[in-house]
Amino acid sequence: MALYVHKYGGTSVGTVDRIRHVANKILQAKQRGDDLVVVVSAMSGETDRLLNLAKQIQDRPNPRELDVLLATGEQVTIALLCMALETLGCPASSYTGAQARILTDAAHTKARILDIDTSRIRKDLAQGKVVVVAGFQGVSEEGDITTLGRGGSDTTAVALAAALKADECLIYTDVDGVYTTDPRVEPKARRLDRITFEEMLEMASLGSKVLQIRSVEFAGKYNVPLRVLSTFVDGPGTLITYEDETMEKALISGIAFNRDEAKLTVEGVPDRPGIAAAILGPIADANIEVDMIVQNVAENDTTDFTFTVHRNDYPKALEILDKIKRDLGARRITGDDQIVKVSLVGVGMRSHAGIASKMFRALAQEGINIRMISTSEIKISVVLDEKYLELAVRTLHDAFELDKVST
Amino acid sequence: MALYVHKYGGTSVGTVDRIRHVANKILQAKQRGDDLVVVVSAMSGETDRLLNLAKQIQDRPNPRELDVLLATGEQVTIALLCMALETLGCPASSYTGAQARILTDAAHTKARILDIDTSRIRKDLAQGKVVVVAGFQGVSEEGDITTLGRGGSDTTAVALAAALKADECLIYTDVDGVYTTDPRVEPKARRLDRITFEEMLEMASLGSKVLQIRSVEFAGKYNVPLRVLSTFVDGPGTLITYEDETMEKALISGIAFNRDEAKLTVEGVPDRPGIAAAILGPIADANIEVDMIVQNVAENDTTDFTFTVHRNDYPKALEILDKIKRDLGARRITGDDQIVKVSLVGVGMRSHAGIASKMFRALAQEGINIRMISTSEIKISVVLDEKYLELAVRTLHDAFELDKVST
Repeated sequence: MALYVHKYGGTSVGTVDRIRHVANKILQAKQRGDDLVVVVSAMSGETDRLLNLAKQIQDRPNPRELDVLLATGEQVTIALLCMALETLGCPASSYTGAQARILTDAAHTKARILDIDTSRIRKDLAQGKVVVVAGFQGVSEEGDITTLGRGGSDTTAVALAAALKADECLIYTDVDGVYTTDPRVEPKARRLDRITFEEMLEMASLGSKVLQIRSVEFAGKYNVPLRVLSTFVDGPGTLITYEDETMEKALISGIAFNRDEAKLTVEGVPDRPGIAAAILGPIADANIEVDMIVQNVAENDTTDFTFTVHRNDYPKALEILDKIKRDLGARRITGDDQIVKVSLVGVGMRSHAGIASKMFRALAQEGINIRMISTSEIKISVVLDEKYLELAVRTLHDAFELDKVST
Repeated sequence: MALYVHKYGGTSVGTVDRIRHVANKILQAKQRGDDLVVVVSAMSGETDRLLNLAKQIQDRPNPRELDVLLATGEQVTIALLCMALETLGCPASSYTGAQARILTDAAHTKARILDIDTSRIRKDLAQGKVVVVAGFQGVSEEGDITTLGRGGSDTTAVALAAALKADECLIYTDVDGVYTTDPRVEPKARRLDRITFEEMLEMASLGSKVLQIRSVEFAGKYNVPLRVLSTFVDGPGTLITYEDETMEKALISGIAFNRDEAKLTVEGVPDRPGIAAAILGPIADANIEVDMIVQNVAENDTTDFTFTVHRNDYPKALEILDKIKRDLGARRITGDDQIVKVSLVGVGMRSHAGIASKMFRALAQEGINIRMISTSEIKISVVLDEKYLELAVRTLHDAFELDKVST
């Protein structure tokens, strides 16, 4: 007998009919003889409704009270799902974050899970009940209600799976798995059967928004096998796990991309220690997140410093650089907000030379000019003119034969 | 420095604007230098919305899960009210029933409060905070969320006032106090400055639905002075307290009435022990609540047995009596669902003879025939034909000069 944690997001439980559908799926799983803990989000739209009520009263709602307010969203879902399970003859018990003893720090609206006391859940499981837990929420040592921030329900599911030593944590969502790239850009994109935690982290942070990064980190840290699959279409989904010997030996797992980038270059700054901090300090102070950073070797004691930001932050970043230009001793500031980032991701590239050159050659053959390059152990990212995005993704998908199962 | 418990019902916190209005009232009270604990209901309509969701899933929703669901209603209000108080510069902290340690039995949807641990509330009060508590809800010893049933927020307020030994419990509602009778029937009806717990119980159960009976019983038991007043119109309201020497010496406090009555008579049953039980047993088994019961002395070894029920239950009750008529040995069954009950209520009548005869004379002078009479220590109820209701109420209001302050 195995123990599984299921997680159903807001879309999956967005209406009474969908809650019934989820109850049916749970019943089927239960009838296979396994123990089940189910984590649910608020019904879609509910969190926004509550947030809107709060904002009508307070521009920046008090964080402690905001958590009290938002936590009601999941509390509604757990009760309704347990009722739906009971009508199917499947005994179930609901738990809020506090009742499930999901202990967090006191950082309201972005709390971190410290510990979970699973004794009451285990008792219910032993009695053959399905345990339904409110995602996204916990309780501080002082007894205050806390929430975990965006994607918190994924984190709840993974944390429960880790605490219960579950065999697998299944994240049910509206896509049927992780793809080699976005099928809207490359119709030949293929669902991956497996992917490593590290690859998933690179894919997620680069725009494949299937899973919240924090929950993947958490799953990796505690070695919880994660599976992403569809609530609405049956199928095996994609298993996210550690690399092992039996895994499909792909060089490249997928191609991630990000449309919302803009780049800024500080040209001809003196090549001296502290110059990077002098440039990025004021950017960080303005709460602008920096993605790629590239600095090449100096020529004539000056260098060019380039970084990318979210396209929305571009005008503000440009304004800041113009202000500090004189202090930096820079020759000029240039920028471009019509760029995209395309990344090859794959643990296989660790042990294989020639990936980068193959990538650059494939792009060159299509006349695509590379504006910036940045690499990590398991990824190569290039910045391109926006107009080349689709062509670049399809070209690389073909070049690395990602539509085929083994490379 | 005094300690007050305020309670605001669903209509008083029904919109964001009304929550702001309540926050302003609380701030004013706080600025008078007193400590404040505030109990709130769910925003009006919210409990029905949640109940409707549940009923779409389960005809008779699981009671434990229904409590989890309904408890979110008040949880939303406490958070929003604390935010509104903060925008006014008034520090406040919210507590769910569980967080306020309102310990109840495990009778879901109609739990009874067993104990309240007020240590955390007292700590917040000592720090100058307003404490905002979710009404209607508590927590069982097992840690399950419970609710107190209809009017539960009044009960929460009174229980907190008792546990904190508050100087007064103020119930803010949409009427500005308790009246000598319904002003829609008698425009000369007068707001009472004071009324005793016992009178209030008789008034409430007889249809003056200002306060939930349970909360009045509770307040009487723990001697918590209760004040009913309006959220929307300033004024002293009505204080509900024990009779004391300084109290206004009114014979009669008010006239309650109930339109929804129907009466049934079992005529000519043998006058033997157990006959009342034989008649009312099957009625109770059908979950029909009986209000007045009248049995007069026997003639020729048979008697007539009359009782009243809610008008909705009349056809069912008649059907039951027809079925058992033969077993009872009754001559015949008669009934009337076009009747009303009118009651004089007042602790003063304990020590004054002649109230009843004055009442009957006043009614007779207007040609109003009395169909049934039933009395208790502090009330006299008569059953009349429905058409006489308004005339009877105005006649009695005049006869006992209830529009004047002292009698």
